[in-house]
Amino acid sequence: MTKQVQSKSLGKLTNLRRLHKGLINLMPLQTGGMLTDAAKEVLLEFGDGYCTCDFCSGSLSEISNPPVRDFVHELLPEFLGCEVAAITHGAREGKFILMHSLTQPGDSIVVDGNKHYTTVVAAERAGLKVIEVPSSGYPEFRINVDDYVPLIGKHNPRLILLTYPDGNYGNLSDARRLGEIAQEHNVPYVLNGAYAVGRIPIRMEDLGADFIIGSGHKSMASAGPCGVLGMKKKWEGRVLRKSELYSNKEIESLGCTLRGVPLVTLMASFPEVKERVNHWDEQAAKAQWFSLELEKLGFRQLGEKPHRHDLLHFEASMLYDISRNVRDKGYFLYKELKERGIWGPQPGLTRAFKLSTFAADKDQLAFVIDSFKAIISKYS
Amino acid sequence: MTKQVQSKSLGKLTNLRRLHKGLINLMPLQTGGMLTDAAKEVLLEFGDGYCTCDFCSGSLSEISNPPVRDFVHELLPEFLGCEVAAITHGAREGKFILMHSLTQPGDSIVVDGNKHYTTVVAAERAGLKVIEVPSSGYPEFRINVDDYVPLIGKHNPRLILLTYPDGNYGNLSDARRLGEIAQEHNVPYVLNGAYAVGRIPIRMEDLGADFIIGSGHKSMASAGPCGVLGMKKKWEGRVLRKSELYSNKEIESLGCTLRGVPLVTLMASFPEVKERVNHWDEQAAKAQWFSLELEKLGFRQLGEKPHRHDLLHFEASMLYDISRNVRDKGYFLYKELKERGIWGPQPGLTRAFKLSTFAADKDQLAFVIDSFKAIISKYS
Repeated sequence: MTKQVQSKSLGKLTNLRRLHKGLINLMPLQTGGMLTDAAKEVLLEFGDGYCTCDFCSGSLSEISNPPVRDFVHELLPEFLGCEVAAITHGAREGKFILMHSLTQPGDSIVVDGNKHYTTVVAAERAGLKVIEVPSSGYPEFRINVDDYVPLIGKHNPRLILLTYPDGNYGNLSDARRLGEIAQEHNVPYVLNGAYAVGRIPIRMEDLGADFIIGSGHKSMASAGPCGVLGMKKKWEGRVLRKSELYSNKEIESLGCTLRGVPLVTLMASFPEVKERVNHWDEQAAKAQWFSLELEKLGFRQLGEKPHRHDLLHFEASMLYDISRNVRDKGYFLYKELKERGIWGPQPGLTRAFKLSTFAADKDQLAFVIDSFKAIISKYS
Repeated sequence: MTKQVQSKSLGKLTNLRRLHKGLINLMPLQTGGMLTDAAKEVLLEFGDGYCTCDFCSGSLSEISNPPVRDFVHELLPEFLGCEVAAITHGAREGKFILMHSLTQPGDSIVVDGNKHYTTVVAAERAGLKVIEVPSSGYPEFRINVDDYVPLIGKHNPRLILLTYPDGNYGNLSDARRLGEIAQEHNVPYVLNGAYAVGRIPIRMEDLGADFIIGSGHKSMASAGPCGVLGMKKKWEGRVLRKSELYSNKEIESLGCTLRGVPLVTLMASFPEVKERVNHWDEQAAKAQWFSLELEKLGFRQLGEKPHRHDLLHFEASMLYDISRNVRDKGYFLYKELKERGIWGPQPGLTRAFKLSTFAADKDQLAFVIDSFKAIISKYS
């Protein structure tokens, strides 16, 4: 690399700014991770590297100031409806921890066909064979959890996993029924709740799962990377097993995971997150209303109907048709929305894209609906 | 848990404040991770969960805004003196990625006896046998890298690792000589530079290593958790191998690692970090001077002398003697220093503790020396 190229690249690092600040946010990855005011305050307070560890005496989850110990050992288990909780770098890292602890390379696991890609990549890292329960396909992509039964019988999996809801359609499968199936077949059951924990009131024990996974940056109003992992006490000795040489260090977390500010944002936001799940019914109603209004414009909502989650997947053939005839191609939609103060569909997509209604209020969503209407008529 | 206990724990999460803000910081874990002003600004800008991924098209290291791509593919390799770079959750996660990629359970690795505990825990997680090159022991704890040779011959390790410097004594072993040894014996050589990268001018290729590991929160002025990993190009296909099903997703990083604000602090601080390593001679001289001054007070510096790193390990028998006769026991030192605006030795320690001179200027260090003097005379 020439000095000139390097100097240009270095220059790009000064004055880093986010382009989408202050817009109405409909991006599904982000709507549940927007920081509370309390979390924004701790960003600066605990921003310096390793300053969360001022009072560490060897174990992150035992730190009393900031009160990690109370958070991990009291508040999180109560919130997740589980006996033991741990903090992770995120949902995917939680999945790998479980796979690496509970399986051997060559083992099989059974997962839903709507799983997040990281479920498969974590399984690849752990050397596992992934058996998928197919969905019902277009347009609803439902998972019938009874379809796990024959695959469990055939493949003798070391664990089963359900994505609840999945990140593509926002479908909420029958997690409780799968809990009964898991118990009947005596197979550990992992609920990937990256889009549930922090949005929906959800308790692991009510669903009969062995493990529950949450994502701080996706659904718990936290900076990333950051996640939570809940489990039945019977798994603690295996999943959170300690080093033989360093008796207070957990092997799977390499001693500790979230040694930094994302953990403190997770904690600072927690009181508000704990409260907001009580208003889930309003969120679900808002999503249904938004979906119906967009369908009136000619959009088609994929996934379960009536929809029970704020993550919505739409087909919008009229937008795709426009994109084929404009200079910006697929990016025209991103630009049109951005000009109106809206950020949501992934830049470049028009034919089908995902939106989340979680962070926007009804007035903002009405404005979004009007904006789509205006964009469509502008190009008609 | 009763409602009352839970409500008390929840209350602790409001108004989280750091106790050691604004003090003269001598805590070795923290002195290299204090944020630059530029990094503080991006904390709020990119604090919301997943907002670093606004323009992700499937691979974190290819994001152009913020300019992750330039950082990872141009600036980092040049800075680390390597051909290929990646970002990680931290040094320990970088070590596990390498062990998991390059070894099989049951294999052996050879590491220095001064290694960080996470080297051993990462090896346990990967199912490896760890062979240690013993140090010279008290008081200097030097590692003679020629001692790797017989152990390589005897154990046929899949990789060798040197901690440079180690985090206990701040010793800088002959990393270059070990590079020659590694090449002679054709064994992959990992340099754990968690306390070097971002402090010392260091180039992997000059030392003959195959891999170099750095820590953002320890030595690169970043929020945690955050790290870097450099390597020779010949290892890229193995360590950064892609998923069979998701061709742009790296398996060892589970698709991506640092999907959050610590990465942006690492990038924002980078221009300053790149510059500050040029002043390493002044840092080393400052550490030597500080060590000599404390030795005049009766402290004994362990590790190499003259010392070549800001991480210093002291024995202070006179402080230990005091601690045995005061109400606060070992905590008296922490309190006495804190009252004087100084934060450094781990709370509770007096007999032996570590300090780092990296973040304090000479005037501040002179004040620290005077403070130790005053504390000793106060109790004499």
